[in-house]
Amino acid sequence: MIVNDTIVALATASGSGAIAVIRLSGKKAISIGSKFFRSVSGKSLSAQKSHTVHLGHIIDGPRVIDEVLITIFKNPQSYTGEDVIEISCHGSIYIQQEIIQLFLRNGCRMANAGEFTLRAFLNGKLDLSQAEAVADLISSDNEASHQIAMQQMRGGFSSEIAKLREELLNFASLIELELDFAEEDVEFADRDQFKELVERIGLVLRRLIDSFAVGNVLKNGIPVAIVGEPNVGKSTLLNALLNEERAIVSDIAGTTRDAIEDEIAIGGIGFRFIDTAGIRDTKDVVESIGIKKTFEKIEQAQVVIYLFNSEDFKVQCSEFKVELEKIKNKYPLKPLIVIANKIDKIDAEQIAEMQVEIPEILLLSAKNGLGIDELKSKLLNLINTGSLRNNETIVTNTRHYDALLKALEEIQKVKYGLESNLSGDLLAIDIRQALYHFGEITGQVTNDELLGNIFANFCIGK
Amino acid sequence: MIVNDTIVALATASGSGAIAVIRLSGKKAISIGSKFFRSVSGKSLSAQKSHTVHLGHIIDGPRVIDEVLITIFKNPQSYTGEDVIEISCHGSIYIQQEIIQLFLRNGCRMANAGEFTLRAFLNGKLDLSQAEAVADLISSDNEASHQIAMQQMRGGFSSEIAKLREELLNFASLIELELDFAEEDVEFADRDQFKELVERIGLVLRRLIDSFAVGNVLKNGIPVAIVGEPNVGKSTLLNALLNEERAIVSDIAGTTRDAIEDEIAIGGIGFRFIDTAGIRDTKDVVESIGIKKTFEKIEQAQVVIYLFNSEDFKVQCSEFKVELEKIKNKYPLKPLIVIANKIDKIDAEQIAEMQVEIPEILLLSAKNGLGIDELKSKLLNLINTGSLRNNETIVTNTRHYDALLKALEEIQKVKYGLESNLSGDLLAIDIRQALYHFGEITGQVTNDELLGNIFANFCIGK
Repeated sequence: MIVNDTIVALATASGSGAIAVIRLSGKKAISIGSKFFRSVSGKSLSAQKSHTVHLGHIIDGPRVIDEVLITIFKNPQSYTGEDVIEISCHGSIYIQQEIIQLFLRNGCRMANAGEFTLRAFLNGKLDLSQAEAVADLISSDNEASHQIAMQQMRGGFSSEIAKLREELLNFASLIELELDFAEEDVEFADRDQFKELVERIGLVLRRLIDSFAVGNVLKNGIPVAIVGEPNVGKSTLLNALLNEERAIVSDIAGTTRDAIEDEIAIGGIGFRFIDTAGIRDTKDVVESIGIKKTFEKIEQAQVVIYLFNSEDFKVQCSEFKVELEKIKNKYPLKPLIVIANKIDKIDAEQIAEMQVEIPEILLLSAKNGLGIDELKSKLLNLINTGSLRNNETIVTNTRHYDALLKALEEIQKVKYGLESNLSGDLLAIDIRQALYHFGEITGQVTNDELLGNIFANFCIGK
Repeated sequence: MIVNDTIVALATASGSGAIAVIRLSGKKAISIGSKFFRSVSGKSLSAQKSHTVHLGHIIDGPRVIDEVLITIFKNPQSYTGEDVIEISCHGSIYIQQEIIQLFLRNGCRMANAGEFTLRAFLNGKLDLSQAEAVADLISSDNEASHQIAMQQMRGGFSSEIAKLREELLNFASLIELELDFAEEDVEFADRDQFKELVERIGLVLRRLIDSFAVGNVLKNGIPVAIVGEPNVGKSTLLNALLNEERAIVSDIAGTTRDAIEDEIAIGGIGFRFIDTAGIRDTKDVVESIGIKKTFEKIEQAQVVIYLFNSEDFKVQCSEFKVELEKIKNKYPLKPLIVIANKIDKIDAEQIAEMQVEIPEILLLSAKNGLGIDELKSKLLNLINTGSLRNNETIVTNTRHYDALLKALEEIQKVKYGLESNLSGDLLAIDIRQALYHFGEITGQVTNDELLGNIFANFCIGK
């Protein structure tokens, strides 16, 4: 990895705004910046202190490109740990391009995706899991995913891992020291203390591994399949939850043939609603493909909502019950919420009849917003958000999950080794392996390919 | 206009980016910011110097919203002239919203469109024409419009106007002083010097008024109509000029029925290419509506390109000549460029024949990029860019143009008044009127409605 050159990129969202920020990082960031900046104060950028802001003009020979503010960050007190300047210019796309191109012509290179954060990692400003959290933070779109990313970026479980790794490393050293004195049969590493540590590490790893299931769901949104006949008001229900006209609503039965996914944050938790084509028996080929898809979607969902039109209840009651049984038999463990929609269209007597036939029914009118709050709280109750509320560490990254699983496997081996009085040299091998997997998470153990994969998922400018 | 409250808005482009900048301006900007900022250094924001940057966290009670950098600008050393803080946060839309909403809940108001710049104007940081140039600068998309906006923002012709206004004001005062001593028949204002000044003002006003025609064209792009039969390669030509696949290209004649406008910067000047439906005689109703539209577009265009397919020349030569005559007769003063496209498809003999029939022809192959450079330089030569190159002041704003016309009218009246020895009191009225129109440009004379209209065109956050 070449990190000697100076990189440049737009740091703010692409497009036109009041202002835009262009970032330079590298050894020559300040000197290149100075060359094309005429400050109002007349002082050179290089003579300025870190964390100060300067008004002036970006100039290219006689041409004034823009009036800008330049902020200086001197290494190591910057995001990347290198010298950094941030140019806050007027937000026209033309000006952004002119300034970036000016620097590209004069000693800067266009930054690769995630290269600023990569440099921050290589310069020890962030560990690898924190760097990964930066990307998660930028893509977070609800309270839960934001909180998880924030926690991870602020150290989160990587500091926990780093501490355990430290302790494990101490024991590894002691055991390896014993090997040097093998003939004297000494024991530097207290085996009881070591067993206790290995036990403790195992517990932490298991807790982190277990958090992955809930973490992943919280990060990506909880998938909820909405099943029901055409025209029972699935799209209207989504809109009522969303409070916006996002899905297409029409009065023609069968409007929603393809599954539309809509992510809606309820109580800070993201729910991905999957609008399906229903499961009624049909001869229409397109419809029956839809039914197959519906079952696939139920398979993937963590919660199922079965929705029907109250007006149809009298006539179709038995069909509904058949379909409900079908879902319950196929997915006995999947939480199922049964909703009678359009209850504004029927009378109290009819409502009472429905409640007798299907006791668990939730009465709702998507159109009038009736029952929406009850549905929301039902959904929230289904999710165990305890760990999130308690600020517990949650693992959401598949790469971390894999490393944790492998570390646990090695720690188990160490544990059995200790229990069976395995020789120090064999024990040391397993410990080294566990240490390796710990290091993978925080980035103490790494390689170019791994880094390439991780940072390729970043946006340019970060 | 209420300017006592503290406003907040996203200053960077909307959408997700590496970072986003949220701006607060007003008396309480720093104190409100401090309340929700926990700096890494532990120091309060209020204790910090202007133009310094501080790392820390935006917090809402126990909740950490983001790790941010906050820059402080203390009045009057800020864009608005008020206390300003700029929060540079991670660029997720969720975080942007959370931070803005936090401040909205705690004493800030959402900024109106252009309100930051409006405050800058009200606090004397910019005059009105400079404020207007900020919006022009942000919307500039080529070198010419950028340069004009930049010049205007840096003072440009408003400083010229302000200087003339000053001189005129002096004479006005002297003439009004004479009125106080009317009985003594004194002349404080030297009439010859005054005539000379009025003459000079007239010249400047006329120059500025004349610059409006070229300025407006340079600002908005020069409209060029491309006329030709379907399938002669109009869209391909646009793409060749644009170097991108923006217009839809197909091999089916008549693909382009609606006029597509594409702005392409050539040599720093914006050209708006208007793709038309051609003008061949047809019985197809849709096509003939297209022909009517074509003539409307030619009417609006400053340059006309007539494009035909070289392969069709043998058969359609006479038709082409009829159509060319039609255009020339209808618009004798409009520059016309005749292009034979697809010359890669014909041989040298056929090319020679074409050149005999239509001597002014430009040989081109849009597909191979042949002749594109010649077309570009032909277009540039048509435009008198002398004034732009010479860094002369150019007026592009209709409001300024109107005010300049009115000021000129009043100055003419003053001039006639001086020539006809008009009495001082009547002279003074005309001078006051001229001063009024000068003041309209720079904003010394203004009202809420005018300001409302001007700043409503700004984006929020500027």
